[in-house]
Amino acid sequence: MLARSVLFVCFGAVAAQDLINLIVPPDAKAALAASAGKLDSLALNEEELQWLHVLAEGWATPLKGFMTEEEYLQSTHFEHIIVDGQYVPMPVPIVKTCTTEEKDKLTGKESIALTHNGKIYAVMKSPSFYEHFKEERAGRTFGITDKGHPYIEIIHNGGDWLVGGEIQVLEKPVYNDGMDQWRLSPAELQAEFKKLGADAVFAFQLRNPVHNGHALLMQDTAAKLKEQGYKKPVLWLSPLGGWTKDDDVPLKTRMDQHHAIIKNGIFGDTPVVLGIFPSPMIYGGPREVQWHAKSRMNAGATHYIVGRDPAGMKHPDGTKDLYHMWHGQTMLKNNPGLAKMKLLPFHFASYDTKAGKMAFFDPKRKEDFQSISGSKMRKMAANGESPPAGFMDPEGWKILVAYYKSLAGKKEL
Amino acid sequence: MLARSVLFVCFGAVAAQDLINLIVPPDAKAALAASAGKLDSLALNEEELQWLHVLAEGWATPLKGFMTEEEYLQSTHFEHIIVDGQYVPMPVPIVKTCTTEEKDKLTGKESIALTHNGKIYAVMKSPSFYEHFKEERAGRTFGITDKGHPYIEIIHNGGDWLVGGEIQVLEKPVYNDGMDQWRLSPAELQAEFKKLGADAVFAFQLRNPVHNGHALLMQDTAAKLKEQGYKKPVLWLSPLGGWTKDDDVPLKTRMDQHHAIIKNGIFGDTPVVLGIFPSPMIYGGPREVQWHAKSRMNAGATHYIVGRDPAGMKHPDGTKDLYHMWHGQTMLKNNPGLAKMKLLPFHFASYDTKAGKMAFFDPKRKEDFQSISGSKMRKMAANGESPPAGFMDPEGWKILVAYYKSLAGKKEL
Repeated sequence: MLARSVLFVCFGAVAAQDLINLIVPPDAKAALAASAGKLDSLALNEEELQWLHVLAEGWATPLKGFMTEEEYLQSTHFEHIIVDGQYVPMPVPIVKTCTTEEKDKLTGKESIALTHNGKIYAVMKSPSFYEHFKEERAGRTFGITDKGHPYIEIIHNGGDWLVGGEIQVLEKPVYNDGMDQWRLSPAELQAEFKKLGADAVFAFQLRNPVHNGHALLMQDTAAKLKEQGYKKPVLWLSPLGGWTKDDDVPLKTRMDQHHAIIKNGIFGDTPVVLGIFPSPMIYGGPREVQWHAKSRMNAGATHYIVGRDPAGMKHPDGTKDLYHMWHGQTMLKNNPGLAKMKLLPFHFASYDTKAGKMAFFDPKRKEDFQSISGSKMRKMAANGESPPAGFMDPEGWKILVAYYKSLAGKKEL
Repeated sequence: MLARSVLFVCFGAVAAQDLINLIVPPDAKAALAASAGKLDSLALNEEELQWLHVLAEGWATPLKGFMTEEEYLQSTHFEHIIVDGQYVPMPVPIVKTCTTEEKDKLTGKESIALTHNGKIYAVMKSPSFYEHFKEERAGRTFGITDKGHPYIEIIHNGGDWLVGGEIQVLEKPVYNDGMDQWRLSPAELQAEFKKLGADAVFAFQLRNPVHNGHALLMQDTAAKLKEQGYKKPVLWLSPLGGWTKDDDVPLKTRMDQHHAIIKNGIFGDTPVVLGIFPSPMIYGGPREVQWHAKSRMNAGATHYIVGRDPAGMKHPDGTKDLYHMWHGQTMLKNNPGLAKMKLLPFHFASYDTKAGKMAFFDPKRKEDFQSISGSKMRKMAANGESPPAGFMDPEGWKILVAYYKSLAGKKEL
């Protein structure tokens, strides 16, 4: 039982005291703000502000700022960075772009201020500039270079240079969208799990509304963890909160739906912690699932639920899925740096027409099961139709209907 | 002096007894050949036969055959494979392609025979088939997916499936081109270095004729190693012997040139071992330089010479170099798995018109130096012109002139 007793002391791989926290203590804020106000500044776009948030709270521990060229090369080539000769998972480049004009202006500065909408968020020390090889970055990160991929489009819209360096952050970014209270930092999450007396924390990365098939899986997972001897498994619902592509369901709608279903008890008696993950999506499949797992491990997850084709999408040429559906899971299994977290495979649940509820697929009576795809669900919601009874918590469903109604006529579903 | 005394026992990172040798002992050959003759077979193309040679002799230790899907994913994602939880450098996928028809015919077979031109070279046990995602393989390996890249063209000409599994090789591949005696295995090279009493082996990967600027660098390197206390530094000239693109100088011409310059003593009193590296080129820049270093480390190199833009080429779109000139060196420095070998940076030598010989570039009198590029050299050789005195050993030069004369009219230079 050694492993279990260790879990009581330290959730996941990074104990709270070892998490990188780049936010200055409250008593140091005024001094930093005063000095930052005198510095030359560089603007962060919205997506870069989200990465700053990720860095600030230690989701990307041990990174201390936007990647330098060495860190960037290690990340793009190895999907790890090298720290004291050790390989630490870092599958996604976390970088700041700038233009040639900005580089020329800021080269040689001791420090620069990082701003968004005119507000100073952070100070970057000893900024170092390096060329932004956009095609190569896309190819290494995604295995394609097609600008029809939404994040590759972001890469190409960025400047021709990258700038890296350690940062000090003035305060936790807030978004004033009514959801800031759900943006718990890794340290806050670890404290919450401890307060709940959790001896296992199973994380569920979300970018979609939760239906009763998901709920069934979560209840089943909690039961299995108890069978393994865990006394207090806690479910961490972890919706991705940063940039997503246009046709994904927006965070606000998803959060409203999550609140409704938690309130209505669809997860049974398992304690649920709802905490937004502030990262942007990159739609990077096997690379990105490692990022999603690593960041949750840093925040205290001991178990990680992984399904088919995580963080995948259609190839921009429309012919096929961009990634093989099991490569994501394979890469998670093969990454020694993530081995402190146990993988829980996602069992496929679909609508059992005989039982009138979501159930684990039974190949012996496959004619009884009906698959309700995301696009079918979107069409039903847009038409105000009800799904089969038992597909989704009715209050949660109404929230989706309202969202898709609001879209009607604005874009194709 | 601990590290040095270790070098006497074991050159490089892999001692001879730990090198993977997939060639069966002579007394087991007849039995394997007899059983192999009864198996279904799969043909290797010329490039795949070269990879088989690489695998057979342990250049890619610890690989025991063409990569399985897990090894392939680890290599393409991590540039390493994972062995007992440890990261082992393996930056280049070493794979065998096949068509859908071949896969359908061979799936489920316990063993298959690998052939080339009708001759059985090896037996693959428990072959496992997996999809060949050609675009993704290119993107992750090269950072581009452009089919104008000569190795990406090879990838696209391959079958839609890959097949991996451990192999037993009947005998060392021979090519009957008059150069087989120079194709020393890693174990033979280690023995040769030991016989010479080497306490340092500095490897020079070659894909071009050697001019006196290279010779100057080699002499300088030997002198520096002696200054560091090494008594018997040995130079290992290691020309790449496998597939190269059409406009590279062919192996036979290069070897003739190398033999001439060694005979004429241009490396001074440093002992020289000439041993062909049987690998194909992939023109993979920062990935490939790691492969070139790792394979030489396995064969006994203790020091590795690395220049600008190793294994690089022009972007197929013709606009620029495909890779940043220092990224290859940076990746070598950043790979902890290669740290047992010391890196020796390549100092740039060019023609010193005042001294009438190749010399290290002196920025204080840059007007005295004349750069003789590869394309300038090719044009001079094709026209039967003599280069400036002291640029290259005259006998070596004549060999190049003969080669380029033979090409005249066949293709553009």
